[in-house]
Amino acid sequence: MFEAAELDHKVTKADYKREEAELRRALLQAQRDLAEQQRFPVLVLIAGVEGAGKSETVHLLNEWMDPRFIEVTGFALPTEEEAAHPPMWRFWKALPRKGRIGVFFGAWQTLPILERVLGKLGAGGFARRTEEILRLERMLAAEGVLLVKYWFHLSKAQQKQRIKGLEKDRETSWKVTRYDRVLFERYDEFIEVCEPFLRETSTGEAPWTVVPAADERYRALFVGRHLLGAMRARLDAPASVPAAVSVAASPPPDRVNVIRALDLDQELSREDYEEQLAEAQGRLARATRHRHFGRISVVAVFEGNDAAGKGGAIRRLGAALDPRAYRIVPVAAPTEEERAQPYLWRFWRHMPRPGRFVVFDRSWYGRVLVERVEGFAPEHDWRRAYGEINDFEEQLAARGAVVAKFWLAISKDEQHRRFKEREATPFKQHKITAEDWRNREKWDAYEEAVCEMVQRTSTRIAPWTLVEADNKLHARVKVIRTLAERVEAALKSA
Amino acid sequence: MFEAAELDHKVTKADYKREEAELRRALLQAQRDLAEQQRFPVLVLIAGVEGAGKSETVHLLNEWMDPRFIEVTGFALPTEEEAAHPPMWRFWKALPRKGRIGVFFGAWQTLPILERVLGKLGAGGFARRTEEILRLERMLAAEGVLLVKYWFHLSKAQQKQRIKGLEKDRETSWKVTRYDRVLFERYDEFIEVCEPFLRETSTGEAPWTVVPAADERYRALFVGRHLLGAMRARLDAPASVPAAVSVAASPPPDRVNVIRALDLDQELSREDYEEQLAEAQGRLARATRHRHFGRISVVAVFEGNDAAGKGGAIRRLGAALDPRAYRIVPVAAPTEEERAQPYLWRFWRHMPRPGRFVVFDRSWYGRVLVERVEGFAPEHDWRRAYGEINDFEEQLAARGAVVAKFWLAISKDEQHRRFKEREATPFKQHKITAEDWRNREKWDAYEEAVCEMVQRTSTRIAPWTLVEADNKLHARVKVIRTLAERVEAALKSA
Repeated sequence: MFEAAELDHKVTKADYKREEAELRRALLQAQRDLAEQQRFPVLVLIAGVEGAGKSETVHLLNEWMDPRFIEVTGFALPTEEEAAHPPMWRFWKALPRKGRIGVFFGAWQTLPILERVLGKLGAGGFARRTEEILRLERMLAAEGVLLVKYWFHLSKAQQKQRIKGLEKDRETSWKVTRYDRVLFERYDEFIEVCEPFLRETSTGEAPWTVVPAADERYRALFVGRHLLGAMRARLDAPASVPAAVSVAASPPPDRVNVIRALDLDQELSREDYEEQLAEAQGRLARATRHRHFGRISVVAVFEGNDAAGKGGAIRRLGAALDPRAYRIVPVAAPTEEERAQPYLWRFWRHMPRPGRFVVFDRSWYGRVLVERVEGFAPEHDWRRAYGEINDFEEQLAARGAVVAKFWLAISKDEQHRRFKEREATPFKQHKITAEDWRNREKWDAYEEAVCEMVQRTSTRIAPWTLVEADNKLHARVKVIRTLAERVEAALKSA
Repeated sequence: MFEAAELDHKVTKADYKREEAELRRALLQAQRDLAEQQRFPVLVLIAGVEGAGKSETVHLLNEWMDPRFIEVTGFALPTEEEAAHPPMWRFWKALPRKGRIGVFFGAWQTLPILERVLGKLGAGGFARRTEEILRLERMLAAEGVLLVKYWFHLSKAQQKQRIKGLEKDRETSWKVTRYDRVLFERYDEFIEVCEPFLRETSTGEAPWTVVPAADERYRALFVGRHLLGAMRARLDAPASVPAAVSVAASPPPDRVNVIRALDLDQELSREDYEEQLAEAQGRLARATRHRHFGRISVVAVFEGNDAAGKGGAIRRLGAALDPRAYRIVPVAAPTEEERAQPYLWRFWRHMPRPGRFVVFDRSWYGRVLVERVEGFAPEHDWRRAYGEINDFEEQLAARGAVVAKFWLAISKDEQHRRFKEREATPFKQHKITAEDWRNREKWDAYEEAVCEMVQRTSTRIAPWTLVEADNKLHARVKVIRTLAERVEAALKSA
């Protein structure tokens, strides 16, 4: 979920200046259209870790847009008057009307999260508060409110660096408060509460967008661009689309993303490969034959670019496993029987019982990859799929399954080389079709879909492992080693 | 919620025979259309109290319809195989495909409710399970599944009578199991768990329909008619309506309903009235001046037929209250400012702080009364309002508010008399308009809306009080006495 936000995003001053001017113009225009149409209100939630530039961003939005049509409300601890009413009362009072933008700085999630981190709220109480929030947000969305939720993120290292940077300078050291230090000490606990919260409250209508907050200029442009995209999508949608099926916007695509950040061509000699592969396979073999393996199960998902080497990796994986205990499920286009059911149905059928290992060669992620890019699923359907998939994987994990997901990434050049090679090799010709060449033309759209998939579905319970696969040997070792580690870790707590 | 189901519904054998034949024909036709269209599956959940004819109804559905296209699955305690998978797995496996009807006899709610009643599941755990169920049902609805949920209900007295009846006869006494007796002993605990569960899982897409189950023939026709209505509504809807905004069907209207069951003309002499009114006002005055009244608040809602005497009752109520501590909020058509906000917004603003008393002369129920009947709100909007209103009132109650709701009912004749009288009395002429006469023409539609409103929103935390109002004197006493009782009860636990 936070992988993309932790990359080293940077914008130069010159680039910022240039883009800012255009962005302000476009945001003002969107705001004018919003006020003119009077069709819906925009509600922006600003949340996230301490010191991640939340208030700076709020100032900026105010500066960029027409302040007469934007209302910022900050929510701290409830006042005596607020505490005398139901918790949601103060938020209702501050809702923006149609045609306006409301910015909630710290909203309904702030207190429950804080109380949970500080141990003042139990797991059950927190679940109830989460449910209330879900209901409220669902209702607002159904009432036509465009709900845009930003989660400002800093990694632990980035947070540490920020505090150190401020402390070093006498001019700024006063900015580091006791509160800052306490929160930093509890960074891990904080994330442990927030991550599942973000996952569970990221619905199709109102997902959280994680803002990479370390670089001030990048952060500003990110929020500006995203808010513009979200507003324009709704402003330009035909009025006939019911608010109930309207959808949120994607994070803006970026040259710096989790896929491009990979160094795809990892070195690994044939000799080292043989040795490392054998070692990883051995670890996995031992782990899956452990006497406690019967208490867990494994669901391994393989996705990747065409010709990225999924099949080869799966074969090496199989070699480490007891043939009676594992199964490979190849996933193609749904059959007529499968199309007659909810899209997750065909995957539920294959979920392993304890002691079993199941490998999906492509998976339920087709919904947010090929079905999204090719337009097979309408936008409101693939949008809600992120949350539904997280739910699904959470249920598997809760029953003891290790859910391991691999994205095998190759470069566009490497893919071209492999396609050509397949065409030239008689026994490989069946593996390359006109469709593969067509998919290749949509490279950028797929890349965007993969980045959003990782952002929305890489969770602590079921993280994505991004595998640099230009060198197949490296890819195979990384896959099997990761699986061995995941299974070993699960056995420890089984 | 259960008021309508506890009325004395009866169907004679002859009436049953006549209607059954027609119903079977229509159900078979609907089933054929379903199979032909192949657009969506129907999933019927059968749940409720023990001995309420659930299995008989399932048999009947099988008998009435074409068994080749209906699949009944009974869910008891999970088998070893089922227990080895996530709890939802066995339900996924049994989902009906498009064009078919699936009947789940005991579904995902059975175990959590049972475990909660038996104390094996805490409040937090139950909240989590409820949330999982909500997500699953929401997803199924979004995937196009027509989800029809029946809750078979018997009042405690009806349950007692059933057990006694069976025990009396040697031929049937074996039917009363130990389980039956245990559950009867825990009837109140069972309802205490089920009622909030039904409330929270009655969403716009998939509300529970409570089945009056005491009379075998009535019960059968009720389910048959409702299922037919639900299927026909979806079958006949244009394919362009997205499944996400499709809605569930209302319970079938009935001559025996909570409104018609009232004896509207209650006797009360002027003399007795003076005495009883003074006594009720005194009780209320004392209760609202109690030193602990500062810990609670009161939200009193008045709805009723036109000319039912809401104003008169509210005036007598006001006479008992400290003018500094109460406020009357008259609710008319929303202003332009209010229309620019979610519909509950204008009511949230008026929610009282502790120690205050607020009276709504008409209320948020306009959404499911006038807006429904007059078509001001689209069906999927007023349908989801039931759940949203329950949420809203739950939040008020959780913060210590007494939520008391009154429906003042008069007969059609009495209304006519009052309208004529208003027209003939100069100082009352302003109270009667052409609109009042127009509304009157939709008497039956309003009655249906009121019955459904009571069924869906009369909850333990915020029950409706139905007030027989042909005799205004009786109505006023009943209103003020009820309020006094509610406030006294709240003070006891404050």
